[in-house]
Amino acid sequence: MIVIGEKINGSLSKVKAIIQDRNTQSLLDLARRQAEAGADYIDVNVATGERSAEEEVEAMHWAVKALQQEIDTPLCIDSADAQVIKAGLEARNGRPTLINSVNAEPQRLQQIIPLALHFEAPLVALAMDEKGIPPSVEGRLDACRTIAAACQKAGIPLEHIFFDPLVLPVSADTSQGMITLETLKAIKHEFVEAKCILGISNVSYGLPRRVMLNAAFLHMAVFAGLDAAILDPTDARIMAAVRASEVLTGKDNHCRRYLRFLRANR
Amino acid sequence: MIVIGEKINGSLSKVKAIIQDRNTQSLLDLARRQAEAGADYIDVNVATGERSAEEEVEAMHWAVKALQQEIDTPLCIDSADAQVIKAGLEARNGRPTLINSVNAEPQRLQQIIPLALHFEAPLVALAMDEKGIPPSVEGRLDACRTIAAACQKAGIPLEHIFFDPLVLPVSADTSQGMITLETLKAIKHEFVEAKCILGISNVSYGLPRRVMLNAAFLHMAVFAGLDAAILDPTDARIMAAVRASEVLTGKDNHCRRYLRFLRANR
Repeated sequence: MIVIGEKINGSLSKVKAIIQDRNTQSLLDLARRQAEAGADYIDVNVATGERSAEEEVEAMHWAVKALQQEIDTPLCIDSADAQVIKAGLEARNGRPTLINSVNAEPQRLQQIIPLALHFEAPLVALAMDEKGIPPSVEGRLDACRTIAAACQKAGIPLEHIFFDPLVLPVSADTSQGMITLETLKAIKHEFVEAKCILGISNVSYGLPRRVMLNAAFLHMAVFAGLDAAILDPTDARIMAAVRASEVLTGKDNHCRRYLRFLRANR
Repeated sequence: MIVIGEKINGSLSKVKAIIQDRNTQSLLDLARRQAEAGADYIDVNVATGERSAEEEVEAMHWAVKALQQEIDTPLCIDSADAQVIKAGLEARNGRPTLINSVNAEPQRLQQIIPLALHFEAPLVALAMDEKGIPPSVEGRLDACRTIAAACQKAGIPLEHIFFDPLVLPVSADTSQGMITLETLKAIKHEFVEAKCILGISNVSYGLPRRVMLNAAFLHMAVFAGLDAAILDPTDARIMAAVRASEVLTGKDNHCRRYLRFLRANR
């Protein structure tokens, strides 16, 4: 399982302050703790919701430059603004990077695909279009088809796409968990070479014992074929769920990774 | 999810003493605690490994008679000996009961099917034959086919069969988890009207943090289509996993059962 650390996100109030103060040491600390806890990528989202697009471009440039001075873990450049993604990729300067994200909106595809090609970066593709998140499996699959076709036309191989079937809270609608998981299965069936990714924690929004529900959902998703998850690797409960999933799906030979994780997290 | 409480089992040393002493109060207490914790069936296995077949017949008669005086929860009559199962069914006297178990051995089928017919009792069918547990999905499925054919020939409908794909420890062979889960999926695909059951805890044998692995495996199995599980309902961690699975697979409207469980297990 590919683990993407979610903690550098400007929507969290502590992180917002770190970004606004350009506090390099605290930013590095957030990255280092995630890397040490087992993150394969570190997501970088500098949107604080308070600044202009220009300032976000500048913040991304600062964050990526600061991180790559000390952190070897690949980054996941996360923004709703193509200019901000471009700034992150440029600062990254050819080092392994994931683009987060594209979706089936024509304008978004037009902006992001050239960046993915130019920087040879794999990309997260959200199963949604200009009208939002389709309520049905078939609707989400259609969005993935649109993205896959545009990527393949441009020469981006399916192996470079991480499709995200998208997660909505089950507290609002209990059918939502299965819609996400069935979309995941359908994507893995139709696009065999592509990967699937989920930011799972949305599933438990509004309910108690969220980590337990998130872990349960992760287990189901891994069994359905999940390749990557965006989560908090410093939370030992969700990382234990990742390691347990690997054991049970036969992806952890002799249970080595699981046992090493438990020894390190007594 | 149908929960079958596993705690009345003569192989556990405390329970062995209860059975040998014919300690009705302690037996009732074991049953009552499981029923209160949410068991839909209570498994009754009186094999202590020390007594003769005749004594086991007598122990089963005693146990079932004792239990049905006070406990309304259906029982699951569990024995490797058809005579012991018959004693349990007779003592049960027409009340809802599950037979645990039959497998594809011709002799076993010949003994158990008439009991299932006569007592109109659904039955657990293990995916194994006279040579033991087949190592492959196809081998286990073949055993299920043999059982299904024999049952249908005798007039037992598929809806009355709980197929058990069987669980072996992943510590010995990490491919075992997926073999069980893939067998489960294949059974649900081929025998749409039949149910599937698992005694999951074997999966974690020999590994630390067993309950966590058991819960993870349960989550995957429920997503694969599991209908019933044999487990310890008095362990709130595994029952929480059952309730979480129901939420995420859309089987718990408005998350009511989940929220009620959490309130009762603060």
